Formats: sequence, C-alpha cells, structure tokens
Amino acid sequence: MNKNSNSRPIGIFDSGVGGLTVLNALKKQLPFENMIYVGDTARVPYGNKSEKLIQQYAREICDLLISLDCKMIVIACNTASSLALTYLRSSYALPIEGVIEPGVEEAIKHSRNKHIGVLGTHATIRSNVYESKLKKLNPDLMVTNQACPLFVPLAEEGWVDGEIPEKIAKYYLNPLVKNKVDTVILGCTHYPILKATITNILPKNVHLIDSAEVVAQKVKQILAQNKFATESKTEGHLECLVTDMPNQFSLVADRFVDFAIGEIKAIELH
Amino acid sequence: MNKNSNSRPIGIFDSGVGGLTVLNALKKQLPFENMIYVGDTARVPYGNKSEKLIQQYAREICDLLISLDCKMIVIACNTASSLALTYLRSSYALPIEGVIEPGVEEAIKHSRNKHIGVLGTHATIRSNVYESKLKKLNPDLMVTNQACPLFVPLAEEGWVDGEIPEKIAKYYLNPLVKNKVDTVILGCTHYPILKATITNILPKNVHLIDSAEVVAQKVKQILAQNKFATESKTEGHLECLVTDMPNQFSLVADRFVDFAIGEIKAIELH
Repeated sequence: MNKNSNSRPIGIFDSGVGGLTVLNALKKQLPFENMIYVGDTARVPYGNKSEKLIQQYAREICDLLISLDCKMIVIACNTASSLALTYLRSSYALPIEGVIEPGVEEAIKHSRNKHIGVLGTHATIRSNVYESKLKKLNPDLMVTNQACPLFVPLAEEGWVDGEIPEKIAKYYLNPLVKNKVDTVILGCTHYPILKATITNILPKNVHLIDSAEVVAQKVKQILAQNKFATESKTEGHLECLVTDMPNQFSLVADRFVDFAIGEIKAIELH
Repeated sequence: MNKNSNSRPIGIFDSGVGGLTVLNALKKQLPFENMIYVGDTARVPYGNKSEKLIQQYAREICDLLISLDCKMIVIACNTASSLALTYLRSSYALPIEGVIEPGVEEAIKHSRNKHIGVLGTHATIRSNVYESKLKKLNPDLMVTNQACPLFVPLAEEGWVDGEIPEKIAKYYLNPLVKNKVDTVILGCTHYPILKATITNILPKNVHLIDSAEVVAQKVKQILAQNKFATESKTEGHLECLVTDMPNQFSLVADRFVDFAIGEIKAIELH
C-alpha cells in the first residue's frame, strides 16, 4: 500500500442524521483522515423496514462509497449494523465496522456485576441484537433492555436539558437503576446527544458506553493494524451526501457535530 | 346508481397508523359503510419526502383502492392531503377528500376572535398549508403555528396521560394560550389520541377541532349529496392492508380505534 492510498477517505453511513455522532467522534480521534458521510434521508427510518430491504439499501450505499475510493466503511446506524454487517462483510473486501460489536465488547470489559443495561429504539430492542451478542460472549450476563422512543425526537430537536427531557430520561432509566446495572450501552446513534442528561440521572458508579466513541477507537485500531492511517497532518476533508432534503438535514446536523459541516449535497442511489 | 353499488367500500389511506383516528371517526358516524384502510408502512413517514414522491405513492394507493371497487377515497394523512389532493382529484373521477380543508372550514366557522392555532408535525408546519388555506378564506385571520414533534411518539406509545405527556403538551400549547387563540386545529392524524390531555390544558373557551371528526362529517355529507350512502343496516366490513410489518402495525393500531380491527394483511404496491 503506497502513501497516497492512505489518504483515501473513510466512508460512513446512516439512514439520517443519527450517524453524525459517529462522524463527530471519528473527526475527534482521527482529525487528519478524509471522510465521506452518506445520510439516506430519502428512506429514513431504517428501523421499521425488513432485513432484505436494509441489505439492499446498505449495498447501494457501499457501492457508492467504494466508487468514491473509500478505504474502509463504518455503518453508523444500529439497524443497518444489526441487519447488514455480516452480509456486507461477505460481499466486499475492504474493512467494514458497525456500531454494535464495539459497544458490546466495551460493555463486557467494563461490567463488574455482570448486569448491563441497553437503551435503544423500539426496533433495536425488539431485534434483541444487543442481548444476544452480549450473552454469546458471556451467557451469565443479565441484560435490562429499554426502548426510549422519545429520545430520537428530543435529540433531533436539540431539546436535551431542562425539566421535560430530564423527566423523560428518568422515566426510561428507572428500570435500569432499579435492576442495579453497572454498565449502560447507548444503543442508538442519536442518544449521545442526550449523554449529559443520562449521565446525571444514572448513579455515579454506572459506566455509560457511548457507541460513537468506542466505534471511533475501533476504527483507529483497524487503520493502524492495516497500516491504512493517513500520514497527513492537515485537517481532513469531509464530504456530506444525502439522498433527500439537504436543507432539512443541514438544520438538524449542526446539533450533532462540534465542527462546521459545510455544504451538503443531494445524491441519488441505485 | 343502483342499490348494490352503494355497498361499495370507502377507501381510506395514510402513511401508517395515524389515519386510523380518521377510520375510527368514520366507523362511528357511518357504521354501516364498508371500508378499506391502507397504511403505507413500508414508506412511512411521508413528511420528509418530496411532493413528486408523495404524489406517486398516493396514486399507487388510489389505483389499488379503485381496483378494489371503492366508491370514494379519504386521504387520512396531512402530508398527502397537502401535497397530493389536487393532483389526485385531477386524475380520478371518484370523490376524494383530504383532512386539511374540512378542518380549515370548521376553524373559520368557529373562531370569534379570528385567532386560530395550528398544531402539526414539523413537515406540516413548515409547509404552511394550514395558514395559507386559512388566510385564503379570510386574509384578516391571525394564525399561531406550533410543531409538536413529541406528540407522534407519545400517541404511538399510547402514553397520553400523566405528568410527562401533560408537561410536554403544556410546553407546546403555551404559545397558543399566550396568543389567546380561540380555536385550535389538530393538524396531524395522530393528535386526536392526545385530545383529552390537550383539552384539559387549553382554556375552557377554546374550541378544539379534531380533523378526524370533521372529515368524517364531510364524508357523510358527500355520500348523502351523491346518493352514495349504503342502505345496509348491518355493521360494515373493514379490510385493513399495510405495505410492511403487519404485526407491528397491529400492536399500535389497537390504541387508535375503539373497535377490534381484525386481521391486517400485507400487500405490495406498484
């Protein structure tokens, strides 16, 4: 692999804005890497669609990212990670990472009392993907699952503090606190936006796992292991592509990242 | 028109479960009519999709409803009513009614102080469809628009009373109360689920317009005017069709109607 090839971008995709928390964590940990983000806003949400459809959408996006010369792909979406990661890995030769496995591994590493809480959308909780992956690694684990359907609109609104978001978060976290979990996985890419609120409610000894951060760490490892990391020392370039409504995306996107996201281009997928 | 043709069903469609509030109102006011409900769950939500796409989806559903011998069609979806009603009326010969115009007419009839509040999704409020239709009928009206993005997940959860839904509703209704509106339109088919909570928060003199109810009244009128009403005196038959995930639809559907919805069939649209 020559030096130039290491300047090839990392491709990141999600059904919409949620994956921007993963992009944000990647930009922090890998500031010199070039990145391309695809938000499939024409077909959001993925959570209520069938496995076959999600695999087709994910393949279309990966084909695009590969045609744009990406060196690796990050699935910044819990549904697509759950339903399409194995399929994509068997279809393509480049490294592909999802948001679920790194969070699961980190949770297992951190939990002392072997009782882990998982927060996610109805679709993710219903799929049982976290519990089954956790128990595959350690069948003795106890898992408390909690769907938090109001968290996505709260995050997209940027309505993250004050009485109402706090009361909603308390309501959702109550079963986890009662069951004395010592580790909580944020199992939806939107939820890091509510991290401060969630942290304040959980007892001090509970470790909160931000999947966006652990995925970024994993990507950094993969780049190093494969000698894929860029040698550049100037800030990486970001290209942001969406399949519908770039202006609406732009309005919400600013709440999800700590940097200026720049121009958002509309694309069509086939 | 012979007697038999009046037993033909009324077709009702929405992007998902929201339109069931319209179906519920129709069943109450027209218990002897046969009805077919289509929920386009494979492509929900409509609110973030382009006009062209919504018109295409609506046409596909109308083609299906007409092939199933419907005598009239009710668009039980604010987005599709806003973006596709004129297009559908120009494409088909049968009567087609949407959820917006009946609510607008009713609001104009009821308002004394000429200050009307509109609650809707971000997409509906952004489209300005209610304000422009209200002001077309009376340019002197004042309109206070309020997007209520947490109402849809609250309605779908059936989480409609208690401290948290009340506080959320108070937060959203506050600008309407402050601006002294005397009439409020529920501009989203999900919102009738939260009607009791909303009514309790609004001052006693404020008239709340449930679009589902006024649409059902309008449909009754149209059937009478066209001599389309069924002569049957036995309960009408209901067929419920969805484009994806019938089991998930079924779980939420029960919260939206006061009757047993029965079997939900999965269909494909073209």
